[in-house]
Amino acid sequence: MINNPVPWPNGAKCAACVTFDMDADSLVHISHPKESHRKAATTSMLQYGPEIAIPRIVETYRRLGIKQTFYIPAWCVERYPDAVETILKGGHEIGHHGYIHEHPNELPPEEEAHWLDVGIDIMKRATGKAPRGWRAPLYNMSDVSCDLLVERGFVYDASLMGDDQPYMLDTAKGSLVELPTHWGLDDWPQFVQSEDLGYFGNIMSPAMGFEPYIQEFNAIKKYGGLWVAVVHPFATGRLARWDVVATFLEQALAPGDVWFAPMEEIAAHVQKVTASGEYSPRRVAMPAYKAPIFDSAVGKYR
Amino acid sequence: MINNPVPWPNGAKCAACVTFDMDADSLVHISHPKESHRKAATTSMLQYGPEIAIPRIVETYRRLGIKQTFYIPAWCVERYPDAVETILKGGHEIGHHGYIHEHPNELPPEEEAHWLDVGIDIMKRATGKAPRGWRAPLYNMSDVSCDLLVERGFVYDASLMGDDQPYMLDTAKGSLVELPTHWGLDDWPQFVQSEDLGYFGNIMSPAMGFEPYIQEFNAIKKYGGLWVAVVHPFATGRLARWDVVATFLEQALAPGDVWFAPMEEIAAHVQKVTASGEYSPRRVAMPAYKAPIFDSAVGKYR
Amino acid sequence: MINNPVPWPNGAKCAACVTFDMDADSLVHISHPKESHRKAATTSMLQYGPEIAIPRIVETYRRLGIKQTFYIPAWCVERYPDAVETILKGGHEIGHHGYIHEHPNELPPEEEAHWLDVGIDIMKRATGKAPRGWRAPLYNMSDVSCDLLVERGFVYDASLMGDDQPYMLDTAKGSLVELPTHWGLDDWPQFVQSEDLGYFGNIMSPAMGFEPYIQEFNAIKKYGGLWVAVVHPFATGRLARWDVVATFLEQALAPGDVWFAPMEEIAAHVQKVTASGEYSPRRVAMPAYKAPIFDSAVGKYR
Amino acid sequence: MINNPVPWPNGAKCAACVTFDMDADSLVHISHPKESHRKAATTSMLQYGPEIAIPRIVETYRRLGIKQTFYIPAWCVERYPDAVETILKGGHEIGHHGYIHEHPNELPPEEEAHWLDVGIDIMKRATGKAPRGWRAPLYNMSDVSCDLLVERGFVYDASLMGDDQPYMLDTAKGSLVELPTHWGLDDWPQFVQSEDLGYFGNIMSPAMGFEPYIQEFNAIKKYGGLWVAVVHPFATGRLARWDVVATFLEQALAPGDVWFAPMEEIAAHVQKVTASGEYSPRRVAMPAYKAPIFDSAVGKYR
Repeated sequence: MINNPVPWPNGAKCAACVTFDMDADSLVHISHPKESHRKAATTSMLQYGPEIAIPRIVETYRRLGIKQTFYIPAWCVERYPDAVETILKGGHEIGHHGYIHEHPNELPPEEEAHWLDVGIDIMKRATGKAPRGWRAPLYNMSDVSCDLLVERGFVYDASLMGDDQPYMLDTAKGSLVELPTHWGLDDWPQFVQSEDLGYFGNIMSPAMGFEPYIQEFNAIKKYGGLWVAVVHPFATGRLARWDVVATFLEQALAPGDVWFAPMEEIAAHVQKVTASGEYSPRRVAMPAYKAPIFDSAVGKYR
Repeated sequence: MINNPVPWPNGAKCAACVTFDMDADSLVHISHPKESHRKAATTSMLQYGPEIAIPRIVETYRRLGIKQTFYIPAWCVERYPDAVETILKGGHEIGHHGYIHEHPNELPPEEEAHWLDVGIDIMKRATGKAPRGWRAPLYNMSDVSCDLLVERGFVYDASLMGDDQPYMLDTAKGSLVELPTHWGLDDWPQFVQSEDLGYFGNIMSPAMGFEPYIQEFNAIKKYGGLWVAVVHPFATGRLARWDVVATFLEQALAPGDVWFAPMEEIAAHVQKVTASGEYSPRRVAMPAYKAPIFDSAVGKYR
Repeated sequence: MINNPVPWPNGAKCAACVTFDMDADSLVHISHPKESHRKAATTSMLQYGPEIAIPRIVETYRRLGIKQTFYIPAWCVERYPDAVETILKGGHEIGHHGYIHEHPNELPPEEEAHWLDVGIDIMKRATGKAPRGWRAPLYNMSDVSCDLLVERGFVYDASLMGDDQPYMLDTAKGSLVELPTHWGLDDWPQFVQSEDLGYFGNIMSPAMGFEPYIQEFNAIKKYGGLWVAVVHPFATGRLARWDVVATFLEQALAPGDVWFAPMEEIAAHVQKVTASGEYSPRRVAMPAYKAPIFDSAVGKYR
Repeated sequence: MINNPVPWPNGAKCAACVTFDMDADSLVHISHPKESHRKAATTSMLQYGPEIAIPRIVETYRRLGIKQTFYIPAWCVERYPDAVETILKGGHEIGHHGYIHEHPNELPPEEEAHWLDVGIDIMKRATGKAPRGWRAPLYNMSDVSCDLLVERGFVYDASLMGDDQPYMLDTAKGSLVELPTHWGLDDWPQFVQSEDLGYFGNIMSPAMGFEPYIQEFNAIKKYGGLWVAVVHPFATGRLARWDVVATFLEQALAPGDVWFAPMEEIAAHVQKVTASGEYSPRRVAMPAYKAPIFDSAVGKYR
């Protein structure tokens, strides 16, 4: 089912990381720039993430003895220093997630680069080092994102959905490790509803909403890929839902045959086994398209 | 999982309140001001709340021997006096829920204040006393709501989503107890569909739609917070659904280890243990933001 | 749970009717008046109703020995005479469902009356008698619908959602029996998705999608009301779904304690027990509102 | 439940085909002609289809020893030659699915014909023969599609939803075999969510999302029709979901009483038993409507 599976450390059946997109109330400021201060309930719903869920999540991981990855918009890094400190004290990785959850592929390249750099500076000051990995807000990587990331020394990206295991993104100036996920491992379709955020859908029970994650984990473990869960502290970090996740994690860790690790360690492992010749990853040239395939000048597809 | 849990009366494992937002047909008048009289079926669907569901719900609570809280727009208080009388005879609390379900954060502050005052007057006449608590229609608290509530002597708010247990909202002029809930405990994502109300989504079976409430209750009871279910009589009060809820309530009450109480009693308890020094609640300054963080004059985030 | 329950014939625990809104492709013509002929797949999906599902449904009822009610837009009565004949041969009731699924509450009263009359004429020619009952397309009864129905001698309406059992709609000129249902007993939220019809949502499995109907039936039977399922032949009449329904019907009929009957017989029963004084139904004056409660001239609610 | 069932080869209880609409990133180019190159994540999500899912799917079928049908837009045939070659080496049928997933019923007839012909040429070059079957992108068959298909020698269409088994589409110039499916057998309502593709909804777990397919299969097998699953490699071909499908297929094949075959073989069988007089299929004249039934010149329905 998986061709050319990555050899994981110590013979682990698969690699796994729960990644936390701690967007907090950046979402309401970016979508309502003139009225965000009037959205008190949505703000409180989102602030539950850094204020209530983050300490809970980090404590669970302390108990379980594993470290994971948190993607945090730089504006949130500055706005919620306690949450950042809690995460860092827990030994977790913090990755780049934009400045204020702006969508890179809706910005001109120079603006995308600007916010990327602003974010790097803020993260350096807050964490003591430059971020190694990036996840585009709402996965919205642009056609120039990989170039920008490579130029700035990023090691990996976590925005794409092109495989069940790591692969390489090649640009003219260098490569990134891609650590992919997909919408079936995101918690918005399970747990979020918000008129202010323009998002509707049913809300699943905690157990039913986490069931897709479990089935995906079981398949990845069966066949040997990478399980990257994308959860939002304000949503999956709520009490009843996190209780389900914590119970799952205990059970998933018990056999000791899955490698739970921060994304940067997974990326480093892929680089290592590639460099040693032990493994030859799938390689994809980026961007997939440098221009629209529809040539509007002549009204034809290229 | 919950830091600094509130000490509940008599060693109860948690506090719980099913809150009923009895909006009735205010929803169709506010969303279709010129054509609401033409929406006969939607009106009948919504009038099921005060006319059929309210007597049923109050009777269930009479049998179970507990009292809860009903949030009712003032226009509905005047329009449905029988429902109000039934609720009052049952000994339940009636809280403020706007005049006609207008959204506070879409109004200028003086209009918000106006409708708040109109509602207080109507509620005083109908219930004999000023309301102690408020839930913003659709949770849409504004940046000035807390100030307005404090100035008018409200004790608590029930519009926010920032914690799993009560916390304090501090303003320059005084504080409110916040009794939070969240969208995972609201019945619209489970049971409502209405083109007239601009709301779509699947409709869950009665048992499946109430399952999130049960799982949330079990988690709250396990860890010691506050379970605030938000249900609408026109939706969850329908026969098959209420039958599920009534059965759940019987089972939840049986062990005698959960404190079901009206919201005002829960707020009063929090005030009492805080005043006595037995408990030190989490405090949040309100509003979170007094202006947009995006400064459109200079095109920058503050 | 149900106050003042209707006494059903022969001590039946409740009354029940599966009503079929056989809209066929009227839906695509009314929503795409200029391009409906170009929607071949949606048309085929909808024509499955009269061409495939109707014979199947009628055959099931022949085997089970019960009769139910079909609401059919008059345009469909003329367009699909074989389906109409099959239904009539099965002894079922055909009720009025508009001319071509136009929404009454979006029409001026004289247009609503016009199409109502056109429909009555077509139904008289096709069925040999005037329709006794009406369901507004998409339940969209207007403020004048009850007056128009009473003037034309209709016995009952099946468009409203105001109770769990029959009640009376009183107008200045006379009364109608209301046989109510609600969105939780409609199959669109379970089984329909169509871009051409502007309707999205998940599609449930046949068993899961019919589960709400079963739970509602069990509650109605437990407490003694009226179960009015609203299903569309093109949706619930599909093979796997109808197989679930047919199995349910067999089981529901087995104990012999539920009165499955056409809507007109249920309405006649309510009239009979009311006339005899055996029963005093709830009465609602219609319309609920003769004008908007918001007076836009003065910007105030009445 | 099924009138006049098709006699299947070797006494099979029913016929079955999983059809794969391999749209790949055609969807993003057609819906965002000026910005498709900027949608890197959605592109990667869609490219998962040809690059990861197709080899997996073909390998599963090799193991199971059956052949099925893939509908591929011609642009994708040219863009993903490896996927096409993998499919052809597996012995599967490739059907016509438009040029770049344009909707036929939104195009003037001459444009529809143009892209149909462009697609035939590309498919001839890539597969060595003209396509025998067609599925309209998004099922959007127009009023002229059948005429165009008949003129070009197509044997069957797979875009309609008018029955549970094959039927004939008759035009003035000849006939097509229709091999119908319906939205309850499509995987978008179960597994897809994409802002870039304008599609929302909850995402079901792999097992729950495939459950409708299984229930439909069981009903078709019980009553003897044709089960046409419509799945998209980028969605159902993902690891955990395909694992569910592969397990189902093993179990469905085990008794040996279902005829799994490519669509062209099913169409050929229907032609054969019809020609021999063994079977008389249902016949439908196409198009159902040659013009809108609403005559806007006089404002009346015809």
